[in-house]
Amino acid sequence: MSENTLPSGCRDLLGMLAYAELLAFDRMAADARLAPDLHRRAVLCEMAAVEIANHRRIADRLASAAIDPAEAMSPFLSALASYHEATEPTDWLEALTKAYIGDGIADDFFREIAEHLDEPDRDLVLRVLHDDAYDEFAASEIRSAIAADPKIANRLSMWARRLVGEALSQAARVAAEHGDLVALLGDAEVGEQLFTRLKQAHAERMAAVGLNN
Amino acid sequence: MSENTLPSGCRDLLGMLAYAELLAFDRMAADARLAPDLHRRAVLCEMAAVEIANHRRIADRLASAAIDPAEAMSPFLSALASYHEATEPTDWLEALTKAYIGDGIADDFFREIAEHLDEPDRDLVLRVLHDDAYDEFAASEIRSAIAADPKIANRLSMWARRLVGEALSQAARVAAEHGDLVALLGDAEVGEQLFTRLKQAHAERMAAVGLNN
Repeated sequence: MSENTLPSGCRDLLGMLAYAELLAFDRMAADARLAPDLHRRAVLCEMAAVEIANHRRIADRLASAAIDPAEAMSPFLSALASYHEATEPTDWLEALTKAYIGDGIADDFFREIAEHLDEPDRDLVLRVLHDDAYDEFAASEIRSAIAADPKIANRLSMWARRLVGEALSQAARVAAEHGDLVALLGDAEVGEQLFTRLKQAHAERMAAVGLNN
Repeated sequence: MSENTLPSGCRDLLGMLAYAELLAFDRMAADARLAPDLHRRAVLCEMAAVEIANHRRIADRLASAAIDPAEAMSPFLSALASYHEATEPTDWLEALTKAYIGDGIADDFFREIAEHLDEPDRDLVLRVLHDDAYDEFAASEIRSAIAADPKIANRLSMWARRLVGEALSQAARVAAEHGDLVALLGDAEVGEQLFTRLKQAHAERMAAVGLNN
């Protein structure tokens, strides 16, 4: 596959990812206002800034294949906006849990799916995964809050389950509407195995910060 | 002056600039929602991301001089927040005019004041000035809108005058409260000359996009 053409599954994947990054920027930038101090606020703003830089990389890739990024994103506007509208954090810890859990699952998914892409798109998708340093910031904030008040673990565990529920619900919608995207994975058995691995990695991420799956 | 100490005027300047960048990020990120399409929205998000990267540079410089960035920023929270609250854009063109006119004046001010700083702070302040490419994006959007509908020039000219009025009002408040910052400029005559140059550059910026001063 030449660098200048994109199979439709890959085009869909990059379009979805481009819009996911744009919205993640928007939401994290807004969530930063929930920070308890200016230092923490700035860190979440910086996490947001990484998302928009990644958005640019993907939009540039689409443009290099003569695809209008806005057109490639458009089939995914509604599902991604619905996810964020249903999971608007009301405080700093909910915002960080959303960044840690939501981005964690998304990263695992994109890391898996990257294996099914040709270059340069495999490398591009792997490069836009989230920075471990920011993951560790979110994880450490959650751990400290739970250490200070163990009751917080219950509330955040429920919140995390809601995040996953909303994400799965929108993912199912996207999968139903975008056969080419699903076809990237190969057959249904491969899809099942992927789903099992995502669930396992998610359970480990929850346990790592003291949340109950 | 060693790299590890900061005179109080310079500390104030960097604290003000650090918070200005943090708030500019926040406001531009929110204003991006006013964009008429996803491409333009992404460009304003990217302009915002530059602000938070600059915030980090300044916060790191303060920290290197053993100054808590949050403490250095704290005297300026109210004046800068007041400016943004009084100048909340209601549409895309107001948002871009704010970025073009407001950042333009701020850049001119910081470029002038940088001349009165020692290294490494002179270079730091000059490096966080806004990128011409983004200025040109904002200017070109404003020009196109006026070309399509000349009546827009009146509305945006009034808006720009309001931006300048609010900025001057908050600048006067900051100057009254921070003698060390004002002292960076030298004597009152130097301050007067600076003010004249800022007004002149602002008038040229207005004319360059078809706005009336």
